[in-house]
Amino acid sequence: MLPGTPVFTGDTMPSETLTHCIKYDEFGHRELEDLNLIDLNIDPGYNHWIDVRGISDAKYIEAIGAKFQIHPLAQEDILDIEQRPKMDEYDKTIFITAVALKLDLETEELKKEQITLYFGKNFLISFQEDADDFLKPIRERIIHKKGRVGARGTDYLAYSILDYIVDHYYHALDHIEKRLSRMDELLHREESNISQKELHDIKIQIIRIRKSIYPMREVINRFIRTENELINPETDVYLRDLADHSFQIADMSETYQDMINSLHDLYQSETSNRLNNVMKILTIISTIFIPLNFIAGIYGMNFEHMPELQWRWGYFLILGVMAAVSVSFLIYFRRKKWL
Amino acid sequence: MLPGTPVFTGDTMPSETLTHCIKYDEFGHRELEDLNLIDLNIDPGYNHWIDVRGISDAKYIEAIGAKFQIHPLAQEDILDIEQRPKMDEYDKTIFITAVALKLDLETEELKKEQITLYFGKNFLISFQEDADDFLKPIRERIIHKKGRVGARGTDYLAYSILDYIVDHYYHALDHIEKRLSRMDELLHREESNISQKELHDIKIQIIRIRKSIYPMREVINRFIRTENELINPETDVYLRDLADHSFQIADMSETYQDMINSLHDLYQSETSNRLNNVMKILTIISTIFIPLNFIAGIYGMNFEHMPELQWRWGYFLILGVMAAVSVSFLIYFRRKKWL
Amino acid sequence: MLPGTPVFTGDTMPSETLTHCIKYDEFGHRELEDLNLIDLNIDPGYNHWIDVRGISDAKYIEAIGAKFQIHPLAQEDILDIEQRPKMDEYDKTIFITAVALKLDLETEELKKEQITLYFGKNFLISFQEDADDFLKPIRERIIHKKGRVGARGTDYLAYSILDYIVDHYYHALDHIEKRLSRMDELLHREESNISQKELHDIKIQIIRIRKSIYPMREVINRFIRTENELINPETDVYLRDLADHSFQIADMSETYQDMINSLHDLYQSETSNRLNNVMKILTIISTIFIPLNFIAGIYGMNFEHMPELQWRWGYFLILGVMAAVSVSFLIYFRRKKWL
Amino acid sequence: MLPGTPVFTGDTMPSETLTHCIKYDEFGHRELEDLNLIDLNIDPGYNHWIDVRGISDAKYIEAIGAKFQIHPLAQEDILDIEQRPKMDEYDKTIFITAVALKLDLETEELKKEQITLYFGKNFLISFQEDADDFLKPIRERIIHKKGRVGARGTDYLAYSILDYIVDHYYHALDHIEKRLSRMDELLHREESNISQKELHDIKIQIIRIRKSIYPMREVINRFIRTENELINPETDVYLRDLADHSFQIADMSETYQDMINSLHDLYQSETSNRLNNVMKILTIISTIFIPLNFIAGIYGMNFEHMPELQWRWGYFLILGVMAAVSVSFLIYFRRKKWL
Amino acid sequence: MLPGTPVFTGDTMPSETLTHCIKYDEFGHRELEDLNLIDLNIDPGYNHWIDVRGISDAKYIEAIGAKFQIHPLAQEDILDIEQRPKMDEYDKTIFITAVALKLDLETEELKKEQITLYFGKNFLISFQEDADDFLKPIRERIIHKKGRVGARGTDYLAYSILDYIVDHYYHALDHIEKRLSRMDELLHREESNISQKELHDIKIQIIRIRKSIYPMREVINRFIRTENELINPETDVYLRDLADHSFQIADMSETYQDMINSLHDLYQSETSNRLNNVMKILTIISTIFIPLNFIAGIYGMNFEHMPELQWRWGYFLILGVMAAVSVSFLIYFRRKKWL
Repeated sequence: MLPGTPVFTGDTMPSETLTHCIKYDEFGHRELEDLNLIDLNIDPGYNHWIDVRGISDAKYIEAIGAKFQIHPLAQEDILDIEQRPKMDEYDKTIFITAVALKLDLETEELKKEQITLYFGKNFLISFQEDADDFLKPIRERIIHKKGRVGARGTDYLAYSILDYIVDHYYHALDHIEKRLSRMDELLHREESNISQKELHDIKIQIIRIRKSIYPMREVINRFIRTENELINPETDVYLRDLADHSFQIADMSETYQDMINSLHDLYQSETSNRLNNVMKILTIISTIFIPLNFIAGIYGMNFEHMPELQWRWGYFLILGVMAAVSVSFLIYFRRKKWL
Repeated sequence: MLPGTPVFTGDTMPSETLTHCIKYDEFGHRELEDLNLIDLNIDPGYNHWIDVRGISDAKYIEAIGAKFQIHPLAQEDILDIEQRPKMDEYDKTIFITAVALKLDLETEELKKEQITLYFGKNFLISFQEDADDFLKPIRERIIHKKGRVGARGTDYLAYSILDYIVDHYYHALDHIEKRLSRMDELLHREESNISQKELHDIKIQIIRIRKSIYPMREVINRFIRTENELINPETDVYLRDLADHSFQIADMSETYQDMINSLHDLYQSETSNRLNNVMKILTIISTIFIPLNFIAGIYGMNFEHMPELQWRWGYFLILGVMAAVSVSFLIYFRRKKWL
Repeated sequence: MLPGTPVFTGDTMPSETLTHCIKYDEFGHRELEDLNLIDLNIDPGYNHWIDVRGISDAKYIEAIGAKFQIHPLAQEDILDIEQRPKMDEYDKTIFITAVALKLDLETEELKKEQITLYFGKNFLISFQEDADDFLKPIRERIIHKKGRVGARGTDYLAYSILDYIVDHYYHALDHIEKRLSRMDELLHREESNISQKELHDIKIQIIRIRKSIYPMREVINRFIRTENELINPETDVYLRDLADHSFQIADMSETYQDMINSLHDLYQSETSNRLNNVMKILTIISTIFIPLNFIAGIYGMNFEHMPELQWRWGYFLILGVMAAVSVSFLIYFRRKKWL
Repeated sequence: MLPGTPVFTGDTMPSETLTHCIKYDEFGHRELEDLNLIDLNIDPGYNHWIDVRGISDAKYIEAIGAKFQIHPLAQEDILDIEQRPKMDEYDKTIFITAVALKLDLETEELKKEQITLYFGKNFLISFQEDADDFLKPIRERIIHKKGRVGARGTDYLAYSILDYIVDHYYHALDHIEKRLSRMDELLHREESNISQKELHDIKIQIIRIRKSIYPMREVINRFIRTENELINPETDVYLRDLADHSFQIADMSETYQDMINSLHDLYQSETSNRLNNVMKILTIISTIFIPLNFIAGIYGMNFEHMPELQWRWGYFLILGVMAAVSVSFLIYFRRKKWL
Repeated sequence: MLPGTPVFTGDTMPSETLTHCIKYDEFGHRELEDLNLIDLNIDPGYNHWIDVRGISDAKYIEAIGAKFQIHPLAQEDILDIEQRPKMDEYDKTIFITAVALKLDLETEELKKEQITLYFGKNFLISFQEDADDFLKPIRERIIHKKGRVGARGTDYLAYSILDYIVDHYYHALDHIEKRLSRMDELLHREESNISQKELHDIKIQIIRIRKSIYPMREVINRFIRTENELINPETDVYLRDLADHSFQIADMSETYQDMINSLHDLYQSETSNRLNNVMKILTIISTIFIPLNFIAGIYGMNFEHMPELQWRWGYFLILGVMAAVSVSFLIYFRRKKWL
């Protein structure tokens, strides 16, 4: 592939590309129906948020890229949905690739969505991989003047979006914790069985969370350390809080991984133990009855000259021998603590 | 969740929020029944300790936060009981989130409690997650003038609380060591069995200790390295001692983890070994008696023309053959060192 | 081996050494049929790319080395195909050893090829281990004026070749991902079996990818950090993008390794489980029928005095006893949840 | 526990606290019977070594601490025998906590002893946890003027003690190596068995060695890096040699750990292999004889109308069938390479 | 042991200590039969190489040490054959301890040899642990004027010896690779078995290679970074090449370790699989024939009143029942995919 050529790397979804533009300041907001209505120079006092949902249309992205002078490599990154979270700084703009993990509660599956942010002094463009309007709650905070996001700059808007993404990692981890504690409980009941496939599924989810959160953490740390004048010093305390959250998530996912490994070890031990018990039962039964069977077999032989067969008490004698044999085996197994 | 909104993240416990205020200097102390009686400006020579127990009441925390100018994000952290231990510095105050692990000796369970400290020149506010007055012994040191805590500043009080929290990690580790050495002893006796579930429980406890002690260590190190003028240089040697303790705890928990892994490996080997022994018994018994049974079966057949049946010594001959077969198998197993 | 002696370390392949020279600038290119036609001083405005394919002929490499003043140790590295990727800087030239991994889609095997680059102000010599013209697509970009490579310096050409090599790592990882998800799917169907040998093959491929990508990453980072004036500052953003890709590949290969480990654990658990189930069936059958067999054996004995044999309902009584025995065992196994 | 309160943390041993004082210079030494005879100011040209053995008497330690101005926290550390090796620097003194591991050759057990050093310009106090005079050989070097220790300062004495302690780690590792190579040898003989419990014991010993040597290494490195004027520059080369030893010990313990893991893996494989072989024997015997038994069982039935029973050669025919069945199974197992 | 006392730590071998001295410059060389003939001051233009083979004679080493002012601790290191590779710098000399691993092709064993170098402006003393003249090829390069070593300083001679040692690590790794690929091939054939003991042997060899190469790498890096004027700047490019080799060796040994772990996992899975298959055969045979045996056993009982025995077609009916039972089991196992 030629470097710097924007190509959508996902399956070519039929989903339309939707764009939602608003311009806002601390006093209110206005929806802009057409991208062409935006003129960053006319309204320097306003912030503009251009939210692009569904990024299968490479042409459209190129058009936006041209309008806002997005570097060709950055355009390529927007469309390449297998990006590692990262942050690039340009002269007067910052480019951030983030990965959101959305938990689907019904299927218990994690859905990955790439969200790319490109922002300058008074505009922010967000590119969402899917068309399901994941960032709607942020927009509503601006519209309904909830929280600080409407009254602050685009750096705070970028922070809010990242914070919202990171919050969703907590949801995923909470769900994992619930599944783990349910398993732990099951294991502590006698003879109950946990599904190894479920354990494997959870492991894969944690691997995916860790794969995403480590570079996310780096992005947030670079966001804090940058001396770019786009970042208002007042936003710093929020970014540090966000960094704490990302560390917390990395910690939690490691802890859960350790727990799963311990559960797996426990499961393996229990399985071995159970096998041992099954084999003990088989061995006890076989060890006792196979010799008895043999004794019965001997006196089932049809030799003409078998003196014991004529003995008056032969039968009962043999029954006694059999009882003695089985009792001695029982004592033996009792001594070995198998019974 | 909107950033900077204090919301209690635990289960809404019915527990009341209790507040205990004392003001003290090296000569004595006075209990303050009402938070409103505190005026930090009037008594600059006194230290004030406001100890808040049970933090389910977000409103109340917000009120305290307003009185002492606690940053909204810090307020949110006080109520979020899933915090990672951390330290934030503000202009004239320091905010520390710590995690205490309390060992319940009866159930052998570790209970986590989040303890948040917020302190300035002559006041310290501690927020305890539970209402069980964990920090009472520290207060009594002040009241009964035991040790140095009453005669020193709030930095030493903060140190004392952290030291008290860290001490409780030792209790947890001591208990784990006792359980481990009991297991080790059991394993060295013949045929004794250790409970894999107990091993798993201990593992989970160590995972939780490590999860907490690593960020605690970072907090203590930041506490040492800070150049904030709140920290009296004389407190430094105590803080370094505390840092040594936290390193010691991290070391010990790693050592115990290694020991548990070794115990687990040993257990797995012993289980395999036992299975091998069980199977050897089964195999020896089966290998000897199944062929014998077969021989007996042959002469139990009802064919009219079976010459051996009429032989005078046929029965004894066959008994001899059977003895020979079993003796050869016994020699074979003896050679293989199974017997 | 004497240091600084160029010796080809591969199997002495019969493959001819082919050389392809072009000189180009942004306006067009010219093919040079003979190496001797190149005179770097005559055409300072042109870039020269000498592409050497198949490096079994040590004499030839030495001749080129003499013409372009390649250091003896660098000549040795060109011929030693077991090189670790690395970058050496000389006064006015840069020497880069890279490792390409080419996926053969038919055999599903990874083929390693060492590609060495040696470039100065207006020339670049590439040495390809194999004769299969791996770099042809790059040359065609120059010839057909696709992308920027024709219009820029030799640093961009070196970048393009490295980028092309790194792109091929993605192909290998994509193929691995496909195989892994096919396995994952198989495992989620009942009783289906994954091939451990395939898992082992994939593991070995990932080990090889990681072995190559880590030093490749170092090379790319050194390429970025070098202050050599050969590197045009405009190339920097492309190199950083390439570095991101190498990090992404390292991340992905680690993730796949973790997934494979999880799959392996799952497989082991499933195998143990299946063994347990097999043994349960054997144990149930044996436990029920061996005692029954014994009862039948008793009444198959030929003692003259066995009172039960004459009982009118003896046979049916014994059949009843047998039914009772087997029903109790069935209840016992049902209680143990084996059935 | 109140910080800075010296409390002995071991079991309260009945062992007396013994003190041995000598003052020495390069020309000779003098034993001092009473601690009170020491006056550091009177004899600035002499070095004083106060060696305290058995530290269960907190009062006594406090008295020494008062005489030599030992910081309360350091006093606490002397008595707390669970200390992590560490080094603290005070104005004119250095405080070092070291851990010695003494191998008891009879029980093959490692005994831990904490040795604390506190030294200034012309005095060194050593506190030995046990009363068994571990440091006697060092004292004899001074008395018999062996080596350099008598002629140099207290820094060299401290070095000599640490070197002596580190030497004992080598003894422990040598012993472990002997046990490991004995095991390795055992494993290479056929059918010989290594004790998993011994492997576990060795593992625990290595874990303990590593637990101690890592912080010891840090202590030695801090000792080298300190710019305290107590340390004579001539001692540096000895300290670096000591640091090399501590690195060597850490390396060796890691190597032994790797070897043990490999031995454990080998053992597990051998156990599985042996189980496979046991089961093959059982399966071969059962597979051959159970069907034969069944055939014999059929002709043991007492039906009135069983034509085969009357056949002239029925018995021999059936014997032939049985031979054919067992030969085919033998061929089958031979083909499967079980025989 | 007293620090700085040279004591030979190996087994006291009867091997003589042999010394070989040559003095050389770019024009030629002269053998010196007696150490006493060397006078470094007389021949400043010549380099002297004193090669000592077999180091069991501590006295002799001490004599050389005295003649060339080797520090007592360095003398101790020469004789202590368990040294970790290291480099010490003195005022005008450099002391290097290296570890060579020599592959014995017949026994497939790795033999460790410690080689110590001590060199100054125009002399280099090498101490070889064994008497087998490992460094002969280097001497022959000087004698026959092959390569650059004769024409350059002692730093290049030291480099040549280290390079020669590092080259032998490649031989060891090549041999390991051959053994691994042979195993890999074996595993891909059906039912073939790899020897766990061989895998363990290779693991131990890799552990030993890694144990030696990591500190060797550090030594080489220190050699590069030193600003000692003994090192000619022209030697730098050779040293960097040597450092690349040591990194390559570390990389390769890690890769082989990963491969061995994967082979081990594969082996474990195969063993479990085979056990499963063995048990399935046993279970199928037992499950089918034990019930059939039981049926035969019933009609082998000798009750007087067993109506079926008199039935005309009883025998054939029962044979039919038996056939039906076995067919149903066969269908059952076929459904379970066991057959």
